[in-house]
Amino acid sequence: MDQLHTLTLSDVVRQHARTHPAKTALVCGSDRFTYVEFDRRVDQLCAALAADGFRAGDRILWVGQNCHRLLEGLVAAARLGGVFCPVNWRQSAEELVFVIDDVDAALVIWQDAEIGSVVEAARRAATSGARWLCHDRPVGAPDSYETYLDAPVPLGAAPPVDPDDSVLMMYTAAFEGRPNGALLSHRAVVSQSVLMAMLQEVTSEYIYLNSGPLFHIATFMTTLATLQMGGTNVFTRRVDAEEVCRLIDEERCTGAFLIGPTIDQILAANADRRFDLKSLRAFPGKPEWNDMVTLDTSPWAKRPAGYGQTEVMGMATFNAIGPPGAGTSGRPSPLVQLQIVDPDGAQVADGETGEIVLRGPTVGNGYHNRAELNAHRMAGGWWHTNDLGRRELDGTVSFVGPKTRIVKSAAENIYPAEVEACIARHPAVKECAIIGVPDKVWTQSVKAIVVLLDGKAADAEEIIEHCRRSIASYKKPRSVEFMAALPRNGWAVDYDSLDSLFGGGGYPGGGAAGSEKLKR
Amino acid sequence: MDQLHTLTLSDVVRQHARTHPAKTALVCGSDRFTYVEFDRRVDQLCAALAADGFRAGDRILWVGQNCHRLLEGLVAAARLGGVFCPVNWRQSAEELVFVIDDVDAALVIWQDAEIGSVVEAARRAATSGARWLCHDRPVGAPDSYETYLDAPVPLGAAPPVDPDDSVLMMYTAAFEGRPNGALLSHRAVVSQSVLMAMLQEVTSEYIYLNSGPLFHIATFMTTLATLQMGGTNVFTRRVDAEEVCRLIDEERCTGAFLIGPTIDQILAANADRRFDLKSLRAFPGKPEWNDMVTLDTSPWAKRPAGYGQTEVMGMATFNAIGPPGAGTSGRPSPLVQLQIVDPDGAQVADGETGEIVLRGPTVGNGYHNRAELNAHRMAGGWWHTNDLGRRELDGTVSFVGPKTRIVKSAAENIYPAEVEACIARHPAVKECAIIGVPDKVWTQSVKAIVVLLDGKAADAEEIIEHCRRSIASYKKPRSVEFMAALPRNGWAVDYDSLDSLFGGGGYPGGGAAGSEKLKR
Repeated sequence: MDQLHTLTLSDVVRQHARTHPAKTALVCGSDRFTYVEFDRRVDQLCAALAADGFRAGDRILWVGQNCHRLLEGLVAAARLGGVFCPVNWRQSAEELVFVIDDVDAALVIWQDAEIGSVVEAARRAATSGARWLCHDRPVGAPDSYETYLDAPVPLGAAPPVDPDDSVLMMYTAAFEGRPNGALLSHRAVVSQSVLMAMLQEVTSEYIYLNSGPLFHIATFMTTLATLQMGGTNVFTRRVDAEEVCRLIDEERCTGAFLIGPTIDQILAANADRRFDLKSLRAFPGKPEWNDMVTLDTSPWAKRPAGYGQTEVMGMATFNAIGPPGAGTSGRPSPLVQLQIVDPDGAQVADGETGEIVLRGPTVGNGYHNRAELNAHRMAGGWWHTNDLGRRELDGTVSFVGPKTRIVKSAAENIYPAEVEACIARHPAVKECAIIGVPDKVWTQSVKAIVVLLDGKAADAEEIIEHCRRSIASYKKPRSVEFMAALPRNGWAVDYDSLDSLFGGGGYPGGGAAGSEKLKR
Repeated sequence: MDQLHTLTLSDVVRQHARTHPAKTALVCGSDRFTYVEFDRRVDQLCAALAADGFRAGDRILWVGQNCHRLLEGLVAAARLGGVFCPVNWRQSAEELVFVIDDVDAALVIWQDAEIGSVVEAARRAATSGARWLCHDRPVGAPDSYETYLDAPVPLGAAPPVDPDDSVLMMYTAAFEGRPNGALLSHRAVVSQSVLMAMLQEVTSEYIYLNSGPLFHIATFMTTLATLQMGGTNVFTRRVDAEEVCRLIDEERCTGAFLIGPTIDQILAANADRRFDLKSLRAFPGKPEWNDMVTLDTSPWAKRPAGYGQTEVMGMATFNAIGPPGAGTSGRPSPLVQLQIVDPDGAQVADGETGEIVLRGPTVGNGYHNRAELNAHRMAGGWWHTNDLGRRELDGTVSFVGPKTRIVKSAAENIYPAEVEACIARHPAVKECAIIGVPDKVWTQSVKAIVVLLDGKAADAEEIIEHCRRSIASYKKPRSVEFMAALPRNGWAVDYDSLDSLFGGGGYPGGGAAGSEKLKR
């Protein structure tokens, strides 16, 4: 292995422990750790894992909310050549069972508070033989993470780790009805972090409030840029307006992941101005918001967003690059090559729509355990994004839409195929289709169009309740329509016709800033 | 080869031709080329080279001053998997012969203007079987570069190129009396360019005046960052104050490589303010300078410099990273791991002096054709810089000095061993030593201390003239002292004692900002 040019996520933290020894790396509840302490806790976790037989390529699954221990798990996996996977804690037990068995982790770190009973139900149903540690049970409690860390295990030498190996895995892309774990290498994380640090002006003085979900690349990109530059990551379990205000005020946070509805809640919670939020560099909004915070002047804030997906470490094009042009998604990252291709992989002419394909150090390593899908998506040495795009004549790029449509609720992608598969399991349902209906607050809401089996009956409430039991609540339909048969173009369901009939629209990419229009 | 994650210097230019098609990439005299034209000229050069049998690993040597064709040669080498080497055009014929034979290039691109006779003398004496092209002779003249480019050769498919392969080679480190060609990979160039773009705020709108020598990494680092981000590179053959003023004014340059003496010349040349230099973002200086330009507010300008060397793509630590501390050279780049080690490779305690060793994607591939030296310098998978440093208790780094001393004249490193080896070849000289004497304008000037052979005679003028004939003029001693014997500590010459006797001092690293204190 080429050690001379190696820089892993573990090396980054080890280096910070020398370079920024006194700097606070992690703040979480009453826990505060410097980079030296962070590095030492990672070493303790590694020692215990190595003693348990954890080997390169093994996986750690995180089933919990935001917490500093999530980064400890990530860096410990990095140090041992393993892969860390933080999953959506809002999933149902049934969904979790799929993920637990799909990841087949050596270690599952789980959370008792708020989601304990769902996790335990999933654990009972899963077949994976992982060790389970509960991160929020105190030292001495059964399977306590902190007890595991405290075990007096001597630390061996860390194995050499190839920076091209995967270190981070995030579930996404449930195009076929089940999600896939996108794999990202050390190199992808490190390269993208330097680029995001440039565009978001993240330095070692940056203090990032992890207030968005860390199972989503949009929040995690800035977490990792902050880590890369030796800044401070502050964690809040889940977003709560008053707690967000308190943390920004007390920790003098300079950044946070905040979406529109949360900002409205903050404006209400801080109407009396008892919290000083002036340290926060934020996007402009309502006048009272602009007055409460400091307006962000970074390139990213001046021209936010672009096009991206989890599979390419978040972003592949940026509005912040080059002057504005005709395209909706800016220009390619300086770290990727981008082409727009036809189904045979040949480049289409500028102005024509085709599939966006990418190549470069920030491109991921495909999906965990999906050899056939990976072969298809990596054809010809290009990452096929499954997204449609167009290169305008001025060189800018427009994201046209997913090859498979996505419904967007707040920051969450909802894959129609996944919800359709769930509804189809209802005993009264013959077939169904999912569309997105424009929603002022949440971008879109989910609508199901259902065809019942002859002689069977079910009402909207029952269909919705059926979904609530087996998929994450935010994915369930808000409304259900019944038809005698779905309109079709040949074999394919005619979604455009369903949109016309039932008011569908507002899909990501429909003239807006792309599939990853990120706010904070 | 892993094509999915590949990004070479050639890919960067190809991508810009799509992303910034109308953007001016290169300005040089009356030549102006967009990225599309730049990319096409590179293709023409590649087609001709491929037809000539140029293969991966082959080298292109540039013996000329600053010119857009230098970047064409670099990117053509990149496209074919070759290595491009721009050498110091101020070298003597004797020095050039060594370099020409050491590089053993497939193609030498040379310049007639100003240096033609020296180059032709070197060409006659060299044994390398390269093809020679003169870049500044018009189409139709013998061996004209432009004629070669114009040849109607069909372009074949570009071979896959590994981004870890070397693409750039720059001579440096003449510790043993002869310089060594430091090799830098595509990955090192691309990664460092993104980082320098962040610190110097180089974007696609940046217009960089290449007014420093392009055989020196200090100028070239910003050239490459400008290329990486899709900005514009403007070339001037060599620095001339009035021409620099004219170019900044006409091209609205935002950056330039300018050292103190040049700035004084600009102040004189533009005393009447006939040139508008307000587009230039420059470091602060004299009040009339600050009034003439726009003060640079980039992180690099606020806290410039750090520690670095050509072998690690210019910079490895930055004052711009983290708050100022006790160290003179700031903190390590987020793209390197840095250790301070003893001669056995073990880390020394913080506060102790040892050798600076580095690891990471920006570290080079060692020296061309120096297997034994490389084995030594890459021991244990760390790049041994041959420089002494210290990690302070606050995590900052101090550059202490070269393990072998260097004399600094303006931006040029002068290696005493090289000048000593030249003087020792004089028939009257028994032995000699070189020290640096502080100089207000040029940082240091070279002083030789000479011991003559019994019964032989030579005066200072003769020694200086001897040097002028065989090494670059700026390396020759300004003064010569004679002694009966050199003071020694055991076998080693006692340079400290010579400094005390003859007023030596002001060496790079002696309390200043490190060996690569760069200004522009």
